[in-house]
Amino acid sequence: MTDKVRIALDAMGGDHGVSVIIPGAALALARNPNLSFLLVGDEARIRPLLEDHPRLSAASEILHTDVAINMGDKPSTALRRGRGKSSMWLALDAAKSRRADAAVSAGNTGALMAMSRFCVRMMDGVDRPALAVLWPTLRGTSIVLDAGATIGADARQLVGFAVMGAAMARIVFNVDRPRVGLLYTDAEEVDAAAIAEDAARLLRKSDLPDLDFRGFIAGNELGGGQVDVIVTEGFTGNVALKTAEGTARQIAQTLRSAMRQDLRSKIGYVLARRAFGSMREKMDPNRANGAVFLGLDGIVIKSHGDTNAEGFASAVKLGHDMARSDVMARIQEGFTHVSAPLAE
Amino acid sequence: MTDKVRIALDAMGGDHGVSVIIPGAALALARNPNLSFLLVGDEARIRPLLEDHPRLSAASEILHTDVAINMGDKPSTALRRGRGKSSMWLALDAAKSRRADAAVSAGNTGALMAMSRFCVRMMDGVDRPALAVLWPTLRGTSIVLDAGATIGADARQLVGFAVMGAAMARIVFNVDRPRVGLLYTDAEEVDAAAIAEDAARLLRKSDLPDLDFRGFIAGNELGGGQVDVIVTEGFTGNVALKTAEGTARQIAQTLRSAMRQDLRSKIGYVLARRAFGSMREKMDPNRANGAVFLGLDGIVIKSHGDTNAEGFASAVKLGHDMARSDVMARIQEGFTHVSAPLAE
Repeated sequence: MTDKVRIALDAMGGDHGVSVIIPGAALALARNPNLSFLLVGDEARIRPLLEDHPRLSAASEILHTDVAINMGDKPSTALRRGRGKSSMWLALDAAKSRRADAAVSAGNTGALMAMSRFCVRMMDGVDRPALAVLWPTLRGTSIVLDAGATIGADARQLVGFAVMGAAMARIVFNVDRPRVGLLYTDAEEVDAAAIAEDAARLLRKSDLPDLDFRGFIAGNELGGGQVDVIVTEGFTGNVALKTAEGTARQIAQTLRSAMRQDLRSKIGYVLARRAFGSMREKMDPNRANGAVFLGLDGIVIKSHGDTNAEGFASAVKLGHDMARSDVMARIQEGFTHVSAPLAE
Repeated sequence: MTDKVRIALDAMGGDHGVSVIIPGAALALARNPNLSFLLVGDEARIRPLLEDHPRLSAASEILHTDVAINMGDKPSTALRRGRGKSSMWLALDAAKSRRADAAVSAGNTGALMAMSRFCVRMMDGVDRPALAVLWPTLRGTSIVLDAGATIGADARQLVGFAVMGAAMARIVFNVDRPRVGLLYTDAEEVDAAAIAEDAARLLRKSDLPDLDFRGFIAGNELGGGQVDVIVTEGFTGNVALKTAEGTARQIAQTLRSAMRQDLRSKIGYVLARRAFGSMREKMDPNRANGAVFLGLDGIVIKSHGDTNAEGFASAVKLGHDMARSDVMARIQEGFTHVSAPLAE
C-alpha cells in the first residue's frame, strides 16, 4: 500500500445521495490530502456538484451508472436489480478488485451486506463476517460487533469476531492491545450463555498477543466504556443497537421539551448551552459515523443513511484509516494466533 | 374477589431487603387502605421495623422463614436451596393457594421466574408465561413483553403475549381497547421476521374485541409511545430492556458531568432545575416500578432489586390493581376470543 488511499464511493447511497456524499468527500479530502476517489453513480448528477469542489474534482474519477439501490429495497430485491450494475455494487467491486482501497456507502444496510457477501466475498480463513459499529460510551467510544451481519454465531465465530474487532480497535483507538469483552445475557434458558462461556474459555486459552480479554460485559454496561471491543452474536447486537438509538433519541426529545416548559428553564438552558453542546457532541451519531463490515476480502464501510456531510466525511476517514493501516493484513495475522487453540 | 386485597411480600428479597420492603408496604397501605399483607421472611428482622409502622403492623401477618434467596443465586441454585421454604417460594405459594391475591418480590429475576413456574404453575389454557415490564416512553408508559421469561416464542405464543399484555394494559392504563404492536427486527436472515409476520396475520384475522392491533414497531421506536403494548419474543425483549436501561443511565451520567463543567452551566442547571426534575421523574425507574409475570395461575409481581420504598410501593400498587381487576379472569376471557382463529 502506498501513501495514497483511493476510496470508492457509492455516490447515490443514503437518504440524501450526492448532495451529502460530494460535500462529505470534499471535507474528508481537505483533512486527508492523500485521498483520491472513485465516484460511482449518475455522472449527470455528480458533475455539477463537483464544480463547487475543484480540489475534489481533481482528485476524483467518475464511474457512471444509472442504477441506484433504494433505501427501502429488500436485500433480495437489491441483489436482483443492482447486481453488476448499481452504484453500490460497482463501488464494492472496485474495493474487491483493488482499484480502490476501500468502498464507502450510505445505502441501505441489508442491501450493502448482501451485496458485499456476493461481490466482495469472505477473506481467506474467515468463516463469518461481522458488522462492527462505533458505540458512544461514557469514556469515549467502543466497537460493538456483530451488529447484525449474521445470526447465531457459535463460540469459535465469536472468537473470530473478537480478533477482527481487536484489529479494528488497534487502528481506530491507536492502542496496542485493545481490551475485549463478551456480551453476556442472563436469560437462563438460552444457549447464548453457554456459547459465550465457551468463547470466553477459548479466548483465555488463546491468550492472544494483540487482544486483552477482559471477560463478560452485561447488556446494561454496553455504554460503560470498560472495554474497547464488545463481541456478541448478530441478532443480539442488532437489537441492542436499535434499542440504544431509540432510547437516546427518546431521552433527547424528553429533555428538549422539558427545557421549554417554563421561562426559568429556558434561561437555564441558554446558560448551560455549552454543557448541552458538549453533551450533544458526545452523543452525535455523525461524529462517530461509520460501521466496518469486517471479514470480507476488501474494506467496506457503511455510513448512516441520514448522515450529513460532516458525518459522511467521518465514514470516509474511517475507510482511509482502515486501508492505510491495512486492517485486512492485521485480521489475517490475528487469525494465525488463534488457529492453534481453535483447532484443538 | 372482595374489596380487600391481600398481598404476600417476599420480605427478604431485593438489594436492601426488609429495610425497603417494610417502609414500601407502609407507603402502599397509606395510599390503598384496603390492602393487607402476608410478610414472609425472618420474623426477628421484620418485627422491629413494624414498630415504626403501627398501621402496617395491624394490617399484616408474618410468616416466618430463615431461608432467603440471594440476589446472585442462579435459578437452579435458588430452586434447590429455596424450594418449599424460602421467603420467595412461600410468598409465591400464598398467591398460588389464594391465601394471598398476589405475591410481590424484589428478589432476583431468574430465581423468581424459575420458582414461579414450579410453584405457581401455568394458568389453564396458557402455554407460555411472559414477563411484562412497564417501559417509559415519550408519551407516558407502554407495556413490553416478554422481557425474558422464555426464549424463542412462535407466532401463536406471540398472539398469547398480545392477549395477556392487552389484559394488563386495560387495567394499568384504564383503556377499553389497548393498542398493540409487534416488535419487528429487520435482520434479514432471522426467522424472527417470519414469525412476527405470522403473528400479525393471526392477530388481524382474530380481530379481537379487547385489543386494537396496530402492526409492527421497529426496535428504535420502542420508546415512542405509539402503542400501549409491544409484543416480542423473550430473548429480544431481554436484550432490549437491558440496553435501554444502560443507555438511559449512560446519558444521565454524561449530562450530569456536562452540567458541572463550568460556572455558567452550573447556574443554568440550577435555573432549569424544574425541567430536570420533571425529566428525572419521567425516567425514574421507581415511578413505574413493577413487572408482571403473566400467564401463571396466580399474580406475581417482580420489583426492581435496587428499588427504594417509593418504588416498592409502586410494585405493591401494581399487584393490588392486578388483583382487584382480576387480571387472570381477563386473560382467560381474552384467550376464549383467540382460540377459534388459532385453531384453524
